Amino acid sequence: MTERRVAYTAPRTLALDTEGTATTPPPPGQVTIDVAYTGICGTDLHIFHGAMDARVHPPAVIGHEMSGVVAGTAPDVTRWRSGDHVTVMPLISCGQCPACRSGHRHVCHRLVFLGIDATGSLQTRWTVPADTLVRLPDGLPLDHAALTEPTAVAVHDVRRAELRGDEKALVVGGGPIGLLIALVARRTGADLLVAEPDPYRRGIADSLGLATLDPTAVDAVQAVGDWTAGAGADVAFEVSGAEAGVNTAVDALATRGRLVQVAIHPVPRPVSLHRFFWRELTLVGARLYERRDFETAVDLIADGHVPAKTLISRIDPLDRAAEAFALLESGGGVMKVLIDCQSDTGAHAR
Amino acid sequence: MTERRVAYTAPRTLALDTEGTATTPPPPGQVTIDVAYTGICGTDLHIFHGAMDARVHPPAVIGHEMSGVVAGTAPDVTRWRSGDHVTVMPLISCGQCPACRSGHRHVCHRLVFLGIDATGSLQTRWTVPADTLVRLPDGLPLDHAALTEPTAVAVHDVRRAELRGDEKALVVGGGPIGLLIALVARRTGADLLVAEPDPYRRGIADSLGLATLDPTAVDAVQAVGDWTAGAGADVAFEVSGAEAGVNTAVDALATRGRLVQVAIHPVPRPVSLHRFFWRELTLVGARLYERRDFETAVDLIADGHVPAKTLISRIDPLDRAAEAFALLESGGGVMKVLIDCQSDTGAHAR
Ligand SMILES: [Zn+2]
Ligand SMILES: [Zn+2]
Ligand SMILES: [Zn+2]
Ligand SMILES: [Zn+2]
Repeated sequence: MTERRVAYTAPRTLALDTEGTATTPPPPGQVTIDVAYTGICGTDLHIFHGAMDARVHPPAVIGHEMSGVVAGTAPDVTRWRSGDHVTVMPLISCGQCPACRSGHRHVCHRLVFLGIDATGSLQTRWTVPADTLVRLPDGLPLDHAALTEPTAVAVHDVRRAELRGDEKALVVGGGPIGLLIALVARRTGADLLVAEPDPYRRGIADSLGLATLDPTAVDAVQAVGDWTAGAGADVAFEVSGAEAGVNTAVDALATRGRLVQVAIHPVPRPVSLHRFFWRELTLVGARLYERRDFETAVDLIADGHVPAKTLISRIDPLDRAAEAFALLESGGGVMKVLIDCQSDTGAHAR
Repeated sequence: MTERRVAYTAPRTLALDTEGTATTPPPPGQVTIDVAYTGICGTDLHIFHGAMDARVHPPAVIGHEMSGVVAGTAPDVTRWRSGDHVTVMPLISCGQCPACRSGHRHVCHRLVFLGIDATGSLQTRWTVPADTLVRLPDGLPLDHAALTEPTAVAVHDVRRAELRGDEKALVVGGGPIGLLIALVARRTGADLLVAEPDPYRRGIADSLGLATLDPTAVDAVQAVGDWTAGAGADVAFEVSGAEAGVNTAVDALATRGRLVQVAIHPVPRPVSLHRFFWRELTLVGARLYERRDFETAVDLIADGHVPAKTLISRIDPLDRAAEAFALLESGGGVMKVLIDCQSDTGAHAR
């Protein structure tokens, strides 16, 4: 079978490479995976826009949210065999830097992120180090499993928040990561409220039983005040990446509240340090995930706590990846879009 | 004996009020103290400048860092008797607000801070609620004991940092609070480094055995890198109140480092939230102190861990408070200045 891949070749350009590649056995310590599905996320869009050209050198195969089936293993790999259903935790740490030595390998100072700093999963076959694989349970649909990586982000964020069941948490931003955070956080027993201006996204949140507010229609800080009898939220997750989102999160917090910084802010933001002082607030940066977060994410999708089916808006074939990126760029009307990396033509209806 | 007090009457104006006041017995639940010493701090200077006129309405007796001797008690006060040596934790909480109800009375939403929101200790006699008193051990000189309040701030800050003995901490700002933080933090076994541009203040830090750097002469972030074999500081205390101090603290932190926000920043500061995300940093607001911090502070001064004698630059009599404020305003050459509230004229040489 011919291998195919989608390469980022220049800003706003993806090219399908259909040239056959001789299937070579994976090198020592590595595994080759037949990629089933690859999810597209904000980071992929960022790369597509050319905003990460300092890190991503075209032509580059991107993609890091995936599921697949083991197709071949190097002779020294004993834990995996052909046919195993897997996802990949796309991080390779150096093991030597101060972060690695202090046990925080996921924020390694020389981290290689597969799909950004090295070849990703938008292709039919992907060869990766065996120790990046995470096993999927029998019966978990592979399209659902492609949500493991963003779910692991959410698991990590909620863990960084140290959220307790008797608390109230505000999620500022109701895109895929915001909703995943709310869904994961809800499992602790905490009360959740999602602030999101887009009606389509709020509609999905509503359908999942999450309380929502429209920050363009109501004063979010006032609404949180009403919701918490004047106390403010115990936790706020800043997932918007916008200056206004930071201010909402800070102002909505209760005394001793914790703000978990999830979104990427490309420029420094004005932050009321006085408010942090006055109310003894805490700001906690949260990036990526650790292995236990990834394993928890698989469990949460498998047991239905994360309703993957509702979050997957559509699945497009590999040769229509460029159209899928364009659709996501336009913003409204989609939550998570997956690419079926084994399929050739025609959008799958769901 | 005639009672005397120093009142803030208008911006940059302090007036000695020598009119006699009939000594009345304290009202129920209250205690009258013969104030021994009152320390002057940055907040007092702020009030003096008129910057806090929204909270402090002239004429107002200010002052909140003090020591004294119980002179009289209301009949219903049984825990204290005349002659007891005491200091005052100058906080009155409402007991009803969300902060109080969640156990954080020191950051009560309706906090009354004695010396700001109510009459302070720059007077010969001060009447306060009995439950604000903290007992001083026998033999602790009362001038040293006047450092309890700022030491309690430092104890609280170090506790909020969760500093461990195998860690390295940077203190940005070497004024009284910065040095007290370094002294208190050193007791955990941690390694300390104080960044302070003023040579007089650095000299005092040096004399206390604290490592220092001059951020106007060397790149503080680079210096911390060298000091920590490239890892960065585990903890940074931001005590400068300056935008540059925030940047130094953020940039000097190791992955997963904690920044304790001690200083007051009157305006929002540009903060690299990306750095908080990327290195999973934590920002912790720290304000005032809890009762256990106050009690620990008394112990640390009494056992010599906090060398009060070295930190007290001079002691002026009550009728020269205005000159003491002017001296502190000029900045250089003094660390902590105390007012001897029972003395009438002539500066005490030390
Ligand atoms: Zn992603
Ligand atoms: Zn590393
Ligand atoms: Zn003070
Ligand atoms: Zn209160």
